[in-house]
Amino acid sequence: MLIVQKYGGTSVGTLERIEKVAERVLKTASEGHKLVIVVSAMSGETNKLISYAKYFSPIPKESEMDLLMSSGERVTSSLLAIAIYAKGHNAISLSGRGAGIVTDSNFTKARIETIDPKPILSAIEDGTIVVVAGFQGIDEQGRVTTLGRGGSDLSAVAIAGAIGADLCEIYTDVDGVYTTDPRIEPKAKKLPVISYDEMLEMASLGAKVLQTRSVEMAKKLNVNLVTRSSFNENEGTLITHEDKIMEKPLVSGIALDKNQARVGLIGVVDKPGIASEIFGALAESNINVDMIVQTSGGSLGENITNIDFTVNRDELAKAEKCIYKFKNSHEIRDIQINSNIAKVSVVGVGMKSHTGVASKAFTTMAKENINIMMISTSEIKISMVIDDKYSELAVRTLHSAYQLDK
Amino acid sequence: MLIVQKYGGTSVGTLERIEKVAERVLKTASEGHKLVIVVSAMSGETNKLISYAKYFSPIPKESEMDLLMSSGERVTSSLLAIAIYAKGHNAISLSGRGAGIVTDSNFTKARIETIDPKPILSAIEDGTIVVVAGFQGIDEQGRVTTLGRGGSDLSAVAIAGAIGADLCEIYTDVDGVYTTDPRIEPKAKKLPVISYDEMLEMASLGAKVLQTRSVEMAKKLNVNLVTRSSFNENEGTLITHEDKIMEKPLVSGIALDKNQARVGLIGVVDKPGIASEIFGALAESNINVDMIVQTSGGSLGENITNIDFTVNRDELAKAEKCIYKFKNSHEIRDIQINSNIAKVSVVGVGMKSHTGVASKAFTTMAKENINIMMISTSEIKISMVIDDKYSELAVRTLHSAYQLDK
Repeated sequence: MLIVQKYGGTSVGTLERIEKVAERVLKTASEGHKLVIVVSAMSGETNKLISYAKYFSPIPKESEMDLLMSSGERVTSSLLAIAIYAKGHNAISLSGRGAGIVTDSNFTKARIETIDPKPILSAIEDGTIVVVAGFQGIDEQGRVTTLGRGGSDLSAVAIAGAIGADLCEIYTDVDGVYTTDPRIEPKAKKLPVISYDEMLEMASLGAKVLQTRSVEMAKKLNVNLVTRSSFNENEGTLITHEDKIMEKPLVSGIALDKNQARVGLIGVVDKPGIASEIFGALAESNINVDMIVQTSGGSLGENITNIDFTVNRDELAKAEKCIYKFKNSHEIRDIQINSNIAKVSVVGVGMKSHTGVASKAFTTMAKENINIMMISTSEIKISMVIDDKYSELAVRTLHSAYQLDK
Repeated sequence: MLIVQKYGGTSVGTLERIEKVAERVLKTASEGHKLVIVVSAMSGETNKLISYAKYFSPIPKESEMDLLMSSGERVTSSLLAIAIYAKGHNAISLSGRGAGIVTDSNFTKARIETIDPKPILSAIEDGTIVVVAGFQGIDEQGRVTTLGRGGSDLSAVAIAGAIGADLCEIYTDVDGVYTTDPRIEPKAKKLPVISYDEMLEMASLGAKVLQTRSVEMAKKLNVNLVTRSSFNENEGTLITHEDKIMEKPLVSGIALDKNQARVGLIGVVDKPGIASEIFGALAESNINVDMIVQTSGGSLGENITNIDFTVNRDELAKAEKCIYKFKNSHEIRDIQINSNIAKVSVVGVGMKSHTGVASKAFTTMAKENINIMMISTSEIKISMVIDDKYSELAVRTLHSAYQLDK
């Protein structure tokens, strides 16, 4: 097989760990696979370089930041190639430029535009292990760019797509994707397989294994993604196309996001364009709004409505400031803020074809006397906002109700 | 003027010092000069990276070493560009590749072959300050190479030559070139100007300000080189073509090299090719022989000769081993080893056109009762090997005899 393996900052955080990675790589190579390894900077390095730059300026020149930050991954890739070579296997390291990764010119958060598969394919032809510095590329003018946080995962997925790899393994310090957070529900099970769409919901709902950008790209490029731990030999979780999953479970997991706050707008004057005005103002302030629920409000005949939405807790103050001008102009009667909330979500592709999944969630909450403040559903998930003191209870009860511990 | 400034590892050793360098650069720019800055890695960084690589292998793969080590200078160049930009002046950093520096493929000790002046010249056109990562280039295949120790000086001189700079300033922690080591003779004076050839002699004789490679390149490319300190505002020493120096002093300086050992070969069978055999054997063992003196020896009619030579003290053991086989084959009667020697040299272009410079040196030694063991002269220097306990006395007496303290 042709396999792309990506090792994150913790997995290459010390020289000892880089040596362990080299051994792991050689073991896989000895099984007859061709290998491309993508590495992050040693943990702490990128932050160190950023703090260096901030010594000179709170907002350092972005094109220079990219040149600066790209050095962390270059160091790791050279060191790993040296380590593999020292153990008797041919290996070369390639920078983003060397690996043919071309991005747009949005320094510090560039998007990959094309990858020329030739440099890597010709290097692996004779069995050489190619180590690629993740997180970076060059723009059309040949200037070094970086891909933003989580960029090395993106590099790995994009390379896997470009060279037509059979598998793209993302090594972290976590075993894989679990039915829910094992710290909350010790009965949580590692999923052997999950679909791209489910993983996207899980990721955006708070599961921290993979960033949504990487899963989206894997889906787009049809890359079989595996997330597993570099600290043990356990099988990880395969993230793949729904059609490739034989037995689709009704529900794959329960996600919990405790980082949300709820803003309730009571008595909003119900005139055309008011929602667009309010959420336009929030968007202009760069506030990321998650759930939005609108219900009719007020007494019969009153021309008003209620709108609830959630934002990240650390953006709540900004959101409040943004909203108060509508109260001042009497377009909103009252504002209710609640930051003691949690969002619990049930995720599963099975619910596309099965009914009763949502009602089971509501019944389960009701049995435990947990009040649901907001509901939002998509084809493959049901999210409920509840009082955050019930969040662990809700997760455990739902986990059991959908028999995820079986 | 178009000026290339090079700052060494100590000058950019901390963030505070990089900020000081930025201020110095801006001051020069404000005087109306166009500037290209070449930087080394922050002091200690290159050694740190080397030690990382040696963790995996005593002799790490050389092409990977170059990728690895080149990151140190890239970091400094980005940081300095960020610092200059933060102070309100446009600045960009360029890697060796970005600056158009093409070398041969001798990884870890590559030689600069060509420099395309266009990238730098087009960048400085609008007054932008260009910061170049020293010590590195790329080979014809586009692979990153490094130039070996002292490589950043070479980068600066080669760039100055390629873009036709009026001046190439090398900033270190030393004020310039002195008539002799001020720690030995406090009356030593800083030279305002010295010729390339004198500087070459001084450098190869132990003055540590500049490496001979850089001076040789400056001479070849006709680059006006200035060595000065980044820690004060003192004028440095201009190193330039002899013809540009109006008043040529008879003697420019006294150099001392205490790192030599003397090997005396007594009673060498005087047959054709014997010297070539001996020194061929030493060369094959990679031993750098400095002075060689041959005198006729033995009694009248005996067909033997005496040969003395000096080597670096740390290569003495290797040299002895190499020589003993000639004693064993009876081609040499006896071997005398003396590692308590010092080489004192008088350097000056003036001696080309003046007589009596050498005899004054010998007279001065005689007056102090210092025995001269070996003498070797070139057009612009006289070197004498003496007992090393007299070395400081010799330096001070010669310094005064040639009136260098005046």
